[in-house]
Amino acid sequence: MIHYPNGLKTKKNQKINLDGKSSQANRGMRLEENINLSNEYYLRNNIAVIYKKPTPIKVLHIVNTLSGSTKIDDAHFLTPSTTDYNGIYRGKYIDFEAKETKSKTLFPLASIHNHQLEHLKKVAQHGAIAFIIISFTSLSETYLIDQKIVNDYVDSGLKSLPLKDIKDKGHLIKEEYIIPLNYLKIVDANYFPCEK
Amino acid sequence: MIHYPNGLKTKKNQKINLDGKSSQANRGMRLEENINLSNEYYLRNNIAVIYKKPTPIKVLHIVNTLSGSTKIDDAHFLTPSTTDYNGIYRGKYIDFEAKETKSKTLFPLASIHNHQLEHLKKVAQHGAIAFIIISFTSLSETYLIDQKIVNDYVDSGLKSLPLKDIKDKGHLIKEEYIIPLNYLKIVDANYFPCEK
Repeated sequence: MIHYPNGLKTKKNQKINLDGKSSQANRGMRLEENINLSNEYYLRNNIAVIYKKPTPIKVLHIVNTLSGSTKIDDAHFLTPSTTDYNGIYRGKYIDFEAKETKSKTLFPLASIHNHQLEHLKKVAQHGAIAFIIISFTSLSETYLIDQKIVNDYVDSGLKSLPLKDIKDKGHLIKEEYIIPLNYLKIVDANYFPCEK
Repeated sequence: MIHYPNGLKTKKNQKINLDGKSSQANRGMRLEENINLSNEYYLRNNIAVIYKKPTPIKVLHIVNTLSGSTKIDDAHFLTPSTTDYNGIYRGKYIDFEAKETKSKTLFPLASIHNHQLEHLKKVAQHGAIAFIIISFTSLSETYLIDQKIVNDYVDSGLKSLPLKDIKDKGHLIKEEYIIPLNYLKIVDANYFPCEK
């Protein structure tokens, strides 16, 4: 799996996106931006400390420029070992992956790497809050769904997760003005039910 | 702050290391390798899920090669927003930075970015286990010290942390055969004292 930088143009002038996950132009960008803005709000207001991990890149060669800076002139993208986001919220380790789909009816499970699902299962076994955020871009609807539900579908050999099941077993995240994607509200209601 | 790749040679043929933190040759490599090997052991044996974060890199240009792969031909290193390592252990979020020094008497506090110390303080406020691993390479001694102690020294305006204070307030991590740097043994004794 190769990861492309956002909005970059190659020498052949093809439009390439940089969401760290997909080669389809622009996929993943709106969602990622909304999550990052929400995380910045959480951090600024001392609600949670959650960051997006950098995209892993193997550096093969660097040069020192005349201006004294260092330029990487040979490198390639690596497959990430884990998920995109992790951090701490209300004393708990939190870990999730975020994905977009253009489909109006289902989420294709091939969009998530198996080792990412394994990672989510593993951290949940250690006590983490672990889930996937799925955005249906054509519908402008974004859902939070626990890793266990997604892993159960994959373990059953299913190739996709129908939207109706996501509506049933997941949780719609409402877009808000100040916090574009206030997913911690869903976390509060579903992972800390006794404390509310 | 510029980050150099490990063991790479620039076009001017200078030896450059790639520990993501320092431009001094070979610094940080032995320690990083020992921590990574220990983390692999913890992961394989289902003890903890702790990963090193990728070094953040800003990709400016990519090319599609004739073989169909993607090559990054223009990029530069970014200053990391957080620390190098995080994950989950015994249900707790764990976060730390690892540093080496050649000094035999002190640890220079300028080796750690202020925003990394701030990050450690912040996650600790949210309930994390947060510390720094300091390796004295000339002495072959590695210590784990809580973030609060290091932050207190920095807040007092001190420029270095004397080794004798690290011995006093931190904890020596013994090198072991199977787990090169079994720092979770120190975490067990000091962050879960009532449960042992």
